[in-house]
Formats: sequence, C-alpha cells, structure tokens
Amino acid sequence: MTKPTILTFESYDDWDVEPLEAAYKVYNLPYEGKVSDLPADAITEVEAFAFRGHGVLGADIINAFPKLGMIANYGVGYDTIDVDHASSRGVRVTNTPDVLTDDVADLVIGMIIAQSRGIVGASNWVHSGNWARNGAFPLQSKVSGKRFGIVGLGRIGRAVAERLQPFGGDVYYYSRTKKDAPQWTHCTDIVSMAEKVDVLVITVSGGPETAGLIGAETLTALGPQGLLVNASRGTTVDEAALLDALETGTIRSAALDVYDNEPHIDPRFLTLDNVLLQPHQSSGTVETRKIMGQLQRDNLAAYFAGKPLLTPVN
Amino acid sequence: MTKPTILTFESYDDWDVEPLEAAYKVYNLPYEGKVSDLPADAITEVEAFAFRGHGVLGADIINAFPKLGMIANYGVGYDTIDVDHASSRGVRVTNTPDVLTDDVADLVIGMIIAQSRGIVGASNWVHSGNWARNGAFPLQSKVSGKRFGIVGLGRIGRAVAERLQPFGGDVYYYSRTKKDAPQWTHCTDIVSMAEKVDVLVITVSGGPETAGLIGAETLTALGPQGLLVNASRGTTVDEAALLDALETGTIRSAALDVYDNEPHIDPRFLTLDNVLLQPHQSSGTVETRKIMGQLQRDNLAAYFAGKPLLTPVN
Repeated sequence: MTKPTILTFESYDDWDVEPLEAAYKVYNLPYEGKVSDLPADAITEVEAFAFRGHGVLGADIINAFPKLGMIANYGVGYDTIDVDHASSRGVRVTNTPDVLTDDVADLVIGMIIAQSRGIVGASNWVHSGNWARNGAFPLQSKVSGKRFGIVGLGRIGRAVAERLQPFGGDVYYYSRTKKDAPQWTHCTDIVSMAEKVDVLVITVSGGPETAGLIGAETLTALGPQGLLVNASRGTTVDEAALLDALETGTIRSAALDVYDNEPHIDPRFLTLDNVLLQPHQSSGTVETRKIMGQLQRDNLAAYFAGKPLLTPVN
Repeated sequence: MTKPTILTFESYDDWDVEPLEAAYKVYNLPYEGKVSDLPADAITEVEAFAFRGHGVLGADIINAFPKLGMIANYGVGYDTIDVDHASSRGVRVTNTPDVLTDDVADLVIGMIIAQSRGIVGASNWVHSGNWARNGAFPLQSKVSGKRFGIVGLGRIGRAVAERLQPFGGDVYYYSRTKKDAPQWTHCTDIVSMAEKVDVLVITVSGGPETAGLIGAETLTALGPQGLLVNASRGTTVDEAALLDALETGTIRSAALDVYDNEPHIDPRFLTLDNVLLQPHQSSGTVETRKIMGQLQRDNLAAYFAGKPLLTPVN
C-alpha cells in the first residue's frame, strides 16, 4: 500500500519523526520556509498537514495544496490557523487539548512564586557572589494569602485555580457564564476583578475574540502592587500598554511565557527588572510533548482510516 | 522608668530598629563582630538578646553577660543556639514559629517547579537571545503526577504536602510516628522512601538530632531521575555526599535554600548546572519578616513584664 503524503512544519523531536516517517511520505516546511521552495510533488500529493510552530497558517497555504483534507495541530491553541477558511474548503482541523493542561498550570504556579519570591534574582545573587559579599538578598513578596484572579476558567484556568487553593487566598475568575465552581468567586467584568486582586492570570485561548482583552484600563485597575501572569497567547494582552505599565510602575511586575512576535520579542522587555521572561515553554516537558505528538499522529491516523477524529476543532 | 538593655545581633530592618530603640537601650553586635569589642556597659547591663543571623550562640557568649535572662530568636530554627546551656543558667529562649510556615512552603513549591521546569535557565535563554537565534528551549521535566517524599511532617512539611496535593501525584512522608494524615503515605525509613519518590523534600528542623540525616545512601536511593529539595538547614544533608551525587549524576538535580557555612557556600555548587541555588530566603518576604520582628518583640516585652512568653523553646 502506498503511504499517504503529509507535510510537517518546522522541526520535530526524534521520537516524533520516526513514527511519522514510518506511516507517511513526509515533506517538511522549515521555520520561515516558503511553500514555493517545496518540490512540485509535495504540492500535488500532500493530503494532510502535521502543523506545528510559530507561523500563520492562512488561506494562501491551505489553497496551495489541492488534495489537502486535514490539518493536525500540535498544541491546544490554533489561533494562527484560519479554521473558517479550512472549514469552507472541507478541511478538518484537530488540536491536542487536555494533555498539556497540567504542564501549563504547573508553569503558571511556578511563575507566580518565582516572580513574587524573586527566584531568578536570588539565584543570580548567589552565583554573583553577592550573598557572601553583601549579605541577605532583598526581601520579596509573599504568595500565600494573596487574592488571585483568573481570566478564563477553561481547562487550564481551572487547573490553575485548583493548584492555588491551598495557598489560602481568595480565587476570583472571569468568564462570560458562571461555572460550576462555588469555591471561587465569579466576576463578569475583567477591570473590576483586576481591582480586587493582587495576581491576575490569563488563561483564555488566543484568536480574534480575545485579542487585546487585557489593556491599559485593566492594568491600571490591577495597580502598583499587582502581578500579571500570561500563559495564554501574546495577543490577549495589549503589549504596548503592558510595556508602558511595567516601565512606569502602573503594575508591579509580570511573568510572561508568551509575546507578540515570538521568538523575536520586543527588546524593551529585556531591559526591565520587574518581569520574568519564559520562552513559550508552558507545555515544554518531555513527558507531555511525547503525548502531544502521539495525539497528533492518532488524529492523522483516524483521518486516513476514515474514522472519527479524536479531538476535532471544526 | 529606665529602659532595659538588650543586645541585637547583625542588622535589622528599619521597621524593627525603631520599635526596639523606643522600648530598649540597644547595643548591637554586627556580623562577625566580637563580644570583646562591645563597650563595658553592654557586658554588665544587657538582660536580653534579640538574636538573629548566621553565627553560633554558644556557652561562651551566654556566659559573658551576667544579667542575661532571655534570648529572643528571630526565626523558627534555633539550632545555632546552645539551648541546653541557656536552660542550665536559667536563660529563657523563644523563637518565631508558625508565622513563616507559609513562606517556606511557598518557596519549596516554587523551587520544585523552577528546577523541574528550568525556569532560571529558560529566563537566561530569553535574555541571552538564544530563543530568537537558536529556537525552542530544551524540553524539561513534568511536575504534576510525580511522586513526592517529605522528610518530616511538622508544620512546614504539612504545608508543603497540602500545596502538592492538587498536582495529582502521590505524597509520602517520613516521620518517626504516624501523623493524622490519611491522604498521605507514612514511611518509617528515609532510604526506602527515597527509592519510591521522584522529588525528596527536607523540612525537618536542624540541630544535632538531624545532622547528616540525608547521606549517600539516601541519595543513591533517590536515583538518577531524582530531585532533592532542602529548605531546612544545611546540616541535615551530608554536603560532601550531595556534591558528589550532583557531580556524578547519582541524582538528577537539587534545589537548595540552605548550606553548610552560609553565606560562604562551597564553590563546587557554583560550577554545577543541575542545581538551583537560593540564598536562605525561605522566610524572606516583607510581610512575614514584619510579623517575625513583632513576635520577637512581643516575647521580649512579655519577658520584661514578667508575663508568660508567647513562643518559648525551653
């Protein structure tokens, strides 16, 4: 039997490449590569994308492959994929939800504590010899007992809230509809929630609906003692407003895993001493990435077998 | 009324100095200062110590002050104070328990996540430009679902276990007697507990009873995937064995807030890339330090008023 042909985007780990190549004829579009550089056979043969990475997957790329019937996304967020256009052409889209929820929530808790308690600065304090030379590291900010606000109580928001529970503070959440979560306080307005809390965590999905959801007004409401944590998408925050707020002390600090224009982030971030910068690694564990790769392949296999997709988006 | 005379050790924050000087005639013994350098009046007048810092408070210093009747320690650990000798001379000792429990537990959770997920290295990855130049940060290790072992289920150990609960893994604890904690598994042997777990957290008190409690055998049992977290005292771990284990890969990594010979830690630690170093800052938040200072002063005030001490040690 002839193997179906797929197109992979950017680079995969060895433990993914091997099973993909065993099952499919694989073409690859590297980081910042152009469709026009692919061999002509790729254009005519490719039936599915194993999508991954930073680029935008728009109508132009979807239209370029006449036999394309499926886009299997590696990751839960599919905001860079033009799903509406895919649907209009009958192209199915899948993602990898659930399997990365724990990792994202873990990193959020780690970022809250690391930034509040100055873990990176404290590590530098030891390594630079400052501790031995100049004594105690400057006092930091307590975590337990703080008021936490979560923007979006989906799978990831809920996992964050559960992990915050034993820290003894109050947990508020913003969502359009009230969730089955009586232990946490539902808010219908982000700005007024930001006024109430010390730590504001963004866990909503990306995409047009949430673009610029957190702007200058919310940051002002969070205030000069406030910590903003973003592990969703760079687009959910008005980045210019955030940089201003960090530079002027409108908010105390931020912990970010996502940005506009990743990985070429705004150099203003690099000069700030009140922000913890992470390289979009919220699902970046060996354990989880292996499971994400498997789920992507399971969706591809279901598609080619004509079976129901495991985690369809459209 | 004449103010009683006290001796403070090392440096205090302004918010502590002011109320101490309002209530007492205060002499100060600076870091690495000598009793023999104090004015003669200090020797004859001092009735209480407001103790704080890294030094050893042994029989020699206690004996040097004929009117000494009380040592108020700033901190929960009093392993550097010769309490037996103080008791034999009728000198009362107090500490500041409970009020720092949250902070220590918070930092332990932060250290577990920061080290497992490489938060310090990931921050450096962004700041150095590696992300933009070389792509994704290397994959790290998942936290949720791991098996956690806690050595000592006192106030701090319990607070750590409670915070680990929502991470979905199994929690084991070592203590001589079984505690009222049916949700966690009691172990009577540290080495066999270390074999079972991925993360071993030390929260026991310091002092002669726990000196060298964690040695080469426990580290070997923890094994090449294991993470050791120490937020108790440097003395509870055989530091030479730990350095060997980190250098040879007997254990995967460590996250340490305490060491032998603080703040002049063994320079071998500084060359390792599998250890997170913190400068003994587990109670180092503004909120908690203010409460610790207040409790130290409340104990002093109770002593001079002839009232029961709030948190006596002997």
